[in-house]
Amino acid sequence: MKVDGQEMRPIWFDTDSKTVQIIDQRRLPHEFIIEDLNTVDDVIRAIKDMYVRGAPLIGATGALGVYISLIQKNNKGSDNAYVEAECTRLKDARPTAMNLFWGVDRVRDVVLEETSTEARVKAALATALEVVEEEAINCRKIGEYGLSIIEEISRQKNGEPVNILTHCNAGWLACVEYGTATAPIYTAFDNGIDVHVWVDETRPLNQGARLTAWELGKHGINHTVITDNAGGHLMQHKMVDLVIVGTDRTTRAGDVANKIGTYLKALAARDNDIPFYVALPSSTFDWTITDGIKDIPIEERDPDEIRYVQGLLNGKIQSVLVPPGASKAANHAFDVTPSRLVTGFITERGLCKATQEDIMALFPDKKIG
Amino acid sequence: MKVDGQEMRPIWFDTDSKTVQIIDQRRLPHEFIIEDLNTVDDVIRAIKDMYVRGAPLIGATGALGVYISLIQKNNKGSDNAYVEAECTRLKDARPTAMNLFWGVDRVRDVVLEETSTEARVKAALATALEVVEEEAINCRKIGEYGLSIIEEISRQKNGEPVNILTHCNAGWLACVEYGTATAPIYTAFDNGIDVHVWVDETRPLNQGARLTAWELGKHGINHTVITDNAGGHLMQHKMVDLVIVGTDRTTRAGDVANKIGTYLKALAARDNDIPFYVALPSSTFDWTITDGIKDIPIEERDPDEIRYVQGLLNGKIQSVLVPPGASKAANHAFDVTPSRLVTGFITERGLCKATQEDIMALFPDKKIG
Repeated sequence: MKVDGQEMRPIWFDTDSKTVQIIDQRRLPHEFIIEDLNTVDDVIRAIKDMYVRGAPLIGATGALGVYISLIQKNNKGSDNAYVEAECTRLKDARPTAMNLFWGVDRVRDVVLEETSTEARVKAALATALEVVEEEAINCRKIGEYGLSIIEEISRQKNGEPVNILTHCNAGWLACVEYGTATAPIYTAFDNGIDVHVWVDETRPLNQGARLTAWELGKHGINHTVITDNAGGHLMQHKMVDLVIVGTDRTTRAGDVANKIGTYLKALAARDNDIPFYVALPSSTFDWTITDGIKDIPIEERDPDEIRYVQGLLNGKIQSVLVPPGASKAANHAFDVTPSRLVTGFITERGLCKATQEDIMALFPDKKIG
Repeated sequence: MKVDGQEMRPIWFDTDSKTVQIIDQRRLPHEFIIEDLNTVDDVIRAIKDMYVRGAPLIGATGALGVYISLIQKNNKGSDNAYVEAECTRLKDARPTAMNLFWGVDRVRDVVLEETSTEARVKAALATALEVVEEEAINCRKIGEYGLSIIEEISRQKNGEPVNILTHCNAGWLACVEYGTATAPIYTAFDNGIDVHVWVDETRPLNQGARLTAWELGKHGINHTVITDNAGGHLMQHKMVDLVIVGTDRTTRAGDVANKIGTYLKALAARDNDIPFYVALPSSTFDWTITDGIKDIPIEERDPDEIRYVQGLLNGKIQSVLVPPGASKAANHAFDVTPSRLVTGFITERGLCKATQEDIMALFPDKKIG
């Protein structure tokens, strides 16, 4: 997508210098720093310390990480044990990230079919870039299918701005291009539809205020940052036409795990008859489970993510302590929105309702595990 | 209530030095500073700049402000025009605060019945302290009536901790003693019931994380700070037994205006069959209106309250900028929870359901305006 008029992705292969480069997302929106990834250690640090985040982007980074293992100094690219060990190290960088395993293994498999380091390097780069492109294409399709929903609302409003609320960052920074939740928004904007986005700040890590607001602003899209508390009031007063969010894991029956607070917005949307859509590539469906509240374990993260808030002060990125030092905090990172509150899914194959029947009708080739 | 073992209120009259003193709540929880109010200008600054906040406390501060107008240097206490002018200045400190007008006018009325400055000083102090005591007594009664709800849950749980979620600060810092939403919690704790409080941090100004957590901690009550996003997830997983919040204005039909985000918690409580109570002195009912969503205007405050977050850094209270400098923010300060989502009210006269019939049955002496 565009950053100050220039096309940009959160990860890319610099053909001239033969280097993988990323945006250090920890510093956004206040510092825009591009990092070279020259070694597997660089890749592991980028994933572990959240220079890159978002399931599709982590998968793409892992895939390119296998290529880096074959070009870094002192590599033993023709040695299968070396390749396996580097792939294991990459996958251990975030042990719960399904997309990371998938991205690494897909490149590893083609690498092990070759024998010389030279052939392996070539195969690894081609396959890793294929993974990257596939992510971009999936998101582009999500944008095209989601466009119809926004177009219809725009028609009903006679071209008045369509007000869309989103939570967290399911944008191009989390993917490769377009994003998931943001893909229909970018596509609508690029097609000349007047859109305005309410950006939930998304405590505790403020991915909405920091990343979604930055993305949208850089692409020129009208947006307003709000607290996570505000959406219900805005919906009551008809200031929201549509909610679109992403998801980290969705059951085949349509229960949606996403950033903590998503469930509260779904409740408010239902209470005010506002459509609530979830945008996702089909790789995010977990075909093995149906009951999200029972079967999706919710990660509890470091309470200091709640106690300290990061931002800009005196030209530097710094963190302030908000509650009393002696008070405990609890940091449940995700919640589950039951399928009954979801109007529909926007996928790379089209739209469907949030029922097992409709989901499986769109994906008849997927095995119920 | 207790602060490090010592009884404390947010405002008091120091009999020895004949001075009104307050806690500067802007600096909590990281600095505990007591301010003397010696002049009407001091009182106005304390109200305007939010050294003191919360409707009952603002009323009490205004009442004591009239007394201060009669003892400050160069006062013309026997001059009616002077008294009226100082009262008007006090009321202009926060032009939308009903309790401020009420507190100031109540003392002004008794003052104007006297003629000498000496008699006026005496009448003003007595009446102002009466206002302060009445606020404390109302909150004590709210605590006693609310106790029955917590006792019943504690019995059902065989003495296991009762988990109570609250939003914002409707604690003793906002009142004079006990608070409103917190009054049943303090009363239950003081009666030996095992309670644990989930404290919503309450963006944007973090009154939950800063003030409620501080109050509860200083009184020795077990509590955990959470993001405003977390309550729905906790309720889904039966980690909340009861929600109690305060209110800034409630219609005679039971619609509740309170800090932004309250409505989202009420929706989640209803979706998970968890009782949702609102605690209030009857002075908070607006007997003239029924439809809160239509008839209660919602204040929009400075967007910088969202963009900057205040906390402790290097031993100093400082603020960091979170979103991109170029992004707009919108700061709707309150929302309205429809009566259909409210289990009941806890008032100084007892409990009642959130219907016009039940509210008016408890307050038959109030005029429907």
